[in-house]
Amino acid sequence: MTTDERPVLAVDVGGTKLAVALVDRNGRVHHAVRTATPHGPRADAERVWRALDGVVDRVLAQAGPDGVAGAGVGCGGPMRWPDGVVSPLNLPAWADFPLRARLGERLAGRPVRVHNDAVCVAVAEHWLGAGRGAEHVLGMVVSTGVGGGLVLGGRTVDGAHGNAGHIGHVVVDPDGGPCECGGRGCLESVASGPSLARWAQEQGWRPTVHLAAQATARELAVDARRGHPVALAAMGRAGHALGVGIASATHLLDLEVVSVGGGLAQAGPLLFAPLEEAFRRHARLPFAQDVRVVPAALGQDAGLVGAAALVLAGERYWNPERRHTRTRSR
Amino acid sequence: MTTDERPVLAVDVGGTKLAVALVDRNGRVHHAVRTATPHGPRADAERVWRALDGVVDRVLAQAGPDGVAGAGVGCGGPMRWPDGVVSPLNLPAWADFPLRARLGERLAGRPVRVHNDAVCVAVAEHWLGAGRGAEHVLGMVVSTGVGGGLVLGGRTVDGAHGNAGHIGHVVVDPDGGPCECGGRGCLESVASGPSLARWAQEQGWRPTVHLAAQATARELAVDARRGHPVALAAMGRAGHALGVGIASATHLLDLEVVSVGGGLAQAGPLLFAPLEEAFRRHARLPFAQDVRVVPAALGQDAGLVGAAALVLAGERYWNPERRHTRTRSR
Repeated sequence: MTTDERPVLAVDVGGTKLAVALVDRNGRVHHAVRTATPHGPRADAERVWRALDGVVDRVLAQAGPDGVAGAGVGCGGPMRWPDGVVSPLNLPAWADFPLRARLGERLAGRPVRVHNDAVCVAVAEHWLGAGRGAEHVLGMVVSTGVGGGLVLGGRTVDGAHGNAGHIGHVVVDPDGGPCECGGRGCLESVASGPSLARWAQEQGWRPTVHLAAQATARELAVDARRGHPVALAAMGRAGHALGVGIASATHLLDLEVVSVGGGLAQAGPLLFAPLEEAFRRHARLPFAQDVRVVPAALGQDAGLVGAAALVLAGERYWNPERRHTRTRSR
Repeated sequence: MTTDERPVLAVDVGGTKLAVALVDRNGRVHHAVRTATPHGPRADAERVWRALDGVVDRVLAQAGPDGVAGAGVGCGGPMRWPDGVVSPLNLPAWADFPLRARLGERLAGRPVRVHNDAVCVAVAEHWLGAGRGAEHVLGMVVSTGVGGGLVLGGRTVDGAHGNAGHIGHVVVDPDGGPCECGGRGCLESVASGPSLARWAQEQGWRPTVHLAAQATARELAVDARRGHPVALAAMGRAGHALGVGIASATHLLDLEVVSVGGGLAQAGPLLFAPLEEAFRRHARLPFAQDVRVVPAALGQDAGLVGAAALVLAGERYWNPERRHTRTRSR
């Protein structure tokens, strides 16, 4: 138990934006600053770092030189964990970038903890969101990908390489199409926003409103709400795949709560009704009847809150040393 | 850490046999006694208990009145856990039978710990078998059902009701046939011995050797070894389903070792070759490349060894109190 009352510097590194804030011990977000993630030919590793570092400067200035207890960071995978050497798929400029070490130079002696961004969202939902009070939680993010994180027995489960939680690559259709991971029939290959928009376009759907250069799942949700049959079928297809994947995870892990967040979850009942139907069809063991599959409760700040919790509630959410418990005890 | 040098009374309650033994601190099995599980109209709850109690008597006599440190028990599910009130599907005479309390009367004051029999096998494989030295292990039993248990971060993961590990009810074919659990397309509905024999018979296979009244997966394996095309296809079908389910579990949990035991695993390469092929096809994320999917290393004593480990290595394998960590710490 820490008695440090200082806030934590929270960092959320995304492919679209970089967000930094102070998060206090109650999980409240202060002084959040966001900037666009640099992309394009001139956005090399150092330029992306300088963009982030500049935002960190601005936020640290609010806290004073020794004003933070440490830093928690959520970042896209893959990464070497717990080393915090990151190669985010959504940020190609960083390949084996020593994010933890770089931030460590800014926070001499204080802990800097880096984890997968979807794990941070799951941690936030467990700490203060839809999974609050539960012990066995899967937190999902359904967006441009399908990611997740696991809190089991009240603690994060990290796996052999810090990669536990990849619900997006649970197989929901063994004869299904190729997934970007190289496999086939993964949940993400059916239910991510881009997969969904692609499938609908193959079925002849064209967006009736244009929110972006490329047709997106957001436009698809708009059309589904208006009753477009292909758009409705697309949402149903994604919901079904999510229900199957969540049923599998529930049987394997005896979960209490599954929180579903991310852009696609904004579609509400269009997604959750078919999800629930497929889940109830497949999750039939008695112990699976109690699980609550619910929309995520926290909004866009979830990533920041969860990143901060890696430090603020590290006894539950940061335990890489447990990987070596057995080796030590023998 | 216990310094108690006494052995543990290990009990394995199966639908076919009841096994009891003393297991020492090194996991060695002594004085094992087995008896047939009573079945039929006269085998009510008390008669089954007396059969078990008689075997317990004989084994305890070898240790002396205070000769054991406690008892570890593996039993078919479902059960109320950690209370040890059991209703095994494979032993209908026991419905809400207070197995833990009954054994507790024999071992006044000493711990009696009851867990799912497949969890006990997984624990044994982690402690002394194919998962030894690993931290993140799925132990599977492929037999009349498909069961499993999880050791993650070096400790058992139990789930909200003690039911984590139900790999047999991970969905491997959402459009597949009905499963006995009420769902559809579960791994068990494809890859359990009886499912396999049923499918082969539907395809016209009839056993060329008869080992039992009903055609079984054991006979199927004999015929597959002789090159019978339907028998080979059946083993391939089971192996494929196992590979898909294991790929899903590996992605979700970032596992190091998956051990596959039980009667069907005796089929060797007939099962493991298609399993490996399907696994490699679906488990494509970089971190999944390291996982070892291997035959279980321990034989028919695995259930006894794992049951004993609930007491002998309880700091790793028995942690029901962790379910309440969060509640207490807030």
